[in-house]
Amino acid sequence: MKPLALTMGDPAGIGAELTVRAWQALHRNGRCFIALADPRELTGAPIAEVASPDEAAAIFRSALPVLPVRLAATPQPGRPDKANAKPVIASIELAATLCLSKAASGMVTNPINKAALYDAGFAYPGHTEFLAVLTGASGKQIMMLASPHLRVVPVTVHASLRNSIALLSTDAIVAAARTTAAALRHEFGIAQPRLAIAGLNPHAGEQGALGDEETTIIAPAIAQLRAGGIDVTGPWPPDTMFTATARARYDVAICMYHDQALIPLKTLDMDHGVNVTLGLPIVRTSPDHGTAYDIAGKGVADPSSLIAAIELAVSLAERRASAMSNQTP
Amino acid sequence: MKPLALTMGDPAGIGAELTVRAWQALHRNGRCFIALADPRELTGAPIAEVASPDEAAAIFRSALPVLPVRLAATPQPGRPDKANAKPVIASIELAATLCLSKAASGMVTNPINKAALYDAGFAYPGHTEFLAVLTGASGKQIMMLASPHLRVVPVTVHASLRNSIALLSTDAIVAAARTTAAALRHEFGIAQPRLAIAGLNPHAGEQGALGDEETTIIAPAIAQLRAGGIDVTGPWPPDTMFTATARARYDVAICMYHDQALIPLKTLDMDHGVNVTLGLPIVRTSPDHGTAYDIAGKGVADPSSLIAAIELAVSLAERRASAMSNQTP
Repeated sequence: MKPLALTMGDPAGIGAELTVRAWQALHRNGRCFIALADPRELTGAPIAEVASPDEAAAIFRSALPVLPVRLAATPQPGRPDKANAKPVIASIELAATLCLSKAASGMVTNPINKAALYDAGFAYPGHTEFLAVLTGASGKQIMMLASPHLRVVPVTVHASLRNSIALLSTDAIVAAARTTAAALRHEFGIAQPRLAIAGLNPHAGEQGALGDEETTIIAPAIAQLRAGGIDVTGPWPPDTMFTATARARYDVAICMYHDQALIPLKTLDMDHGVNVTLGLPIVRTSPDHGTAYDIAGKGVADPSSLIAAIELAVSLAERRASAMSNQTP
Repeated sequence: MKPLALTMGDPAGIGAELTVRAWQALHRNGRCFIALADPRELTGAPIAEVASPDEAAAIFRSALPVLPVRLAATPQPGRPDKANAKPVIASIELAATLCLSKAASGMVTNPINKAALYDAGFAYPGHTEFLAVLTGASGKQIMMLASPHLRVVPVTVHASLRNSIALLSTDAIVAAARTTAAALRHEFGIAQPRLAIAGLNPHAGEQGALGDEETTIIAPAIAQLRAGGIDVTGPWPPDTMFTATARARYDVAICMYHDQALIPLKTLDMDHGVNVTLGLPIVRTSPDHGTAYDIAGKGVADPSSLIAAIELAVSLAERRASAMSNQTP
């Protein structure tokens, strides 16, 4: 299998040190990846500059392979610098290009600071929307967060809580659940995925006494999904659906808003959450944390989430490859 | 110390079997309590009918003391019966009366079904509001949920998510935090309680990009509380404030809505959550579950939460008693 491509992320953040630590953790046993970064920033491990991802496999056990993307300015930890916006963006573009051309089997993105990129023409809420454009995908991208304990998909994501309620629709729930069910089948190896749909309101509305979105928006989505042969249950009272007993009954929770999904995920396991973008033509995962300016450059950043993101990307890429090879005669 | 008073709760629910199991678990070592219930319903333990709570202490080790409150109809597990509404209400009223007269040191309420009580004149959203009226309290009752891992106080409780946002106000946050800080000091034995105030929006609004309630409503509440000498921090991003690392930094999380509080509490520990009503002149706790009609009468209900509620009520009552005795010359 081809290597994964790791983007550099914000040079003022923890991307470079996490990349080195991930290589240290994985170079003996893990699958091969290449860093799309400035080699001068990757300290603490032997580095091997390569001209193509194909060179990476042979050297991965002894050095971290780097496809150079040079920075314009020397980064200061914790101090984002617009002078480096172009190479940060170029690293993402290069990863997508390598994935589309099958030179890389998937991409893992280190955290960026969108505000530091806007002046360089980055006009997207985040990686996901940018990658949708770069890969010509249709705009139905879904964010899944996966940890060893729980998978969650928020139907509404980066909007205020008030706007999240306003944005919620039967169509949005159906689209998110369909994309999720397909991904669980084809990339996660779950033949009959079980989807638990959360309610929006306390006690899932208590028969309308505490809100009617369960009746007017969520129940119709469940009916449509069932009619389409997807195994869905709900709407569940949000506060009791993330207990160990409840989690054993489903493969993914479809959540109505950001914190309904992320509170249980991070409360159960802060360090091993992985962000997976579903609905792209390429494999893309990322660690479930930000640039961490407060600890950047101090060598204390925890690589667990990046390592989990790499491992999940490998697993997803393998299943995609296997599904494709099964399709050939 | 005087015994606690346990109400019967809904006779079609699991109150009676939990009461017997709590006595079985606690009669050798626990503090004394009396059941305000129909003795015919309390099967599986030796029962001693008493005429006054003062008789309970002498017999608690050998029998469950019961101050009889007779039912009007034989209850059917899982089938609420309006014929029993009056004794259910009478049990709550009697517990409050015993607490106010100091014949009981506190009360623990088994779960009720409000719908089954409305025809009998019960016009309250739940126990808390009813007890506020019975005890002549001022209407600033606050619900705290406490488990071994986490204490949470939702500022808004039983309203739709949409209405919870509309109901949120600086005054409501300040009132909830003040009542909570006072209770932690005087009843929980925490000399300098640390309160963590949650944001409302994803990422606590991300400097206004994802909602402005942090700036317009929550930050002013924090400023007022600090000016009043209360140790508060926030507004915190809701998704990362319930990790083990974050929880170690505060004694209670003040949450903006029901599920923001209850999702982490129940996800971390479904069985040992206790509901405590703060701001009443009496001690009142309750288990953190409902009538559980689906398992009523089957002998499988888990008494953990009721036992935890009894133990916490004892602890709160002891601190109240000790605080009062310290005030006498």
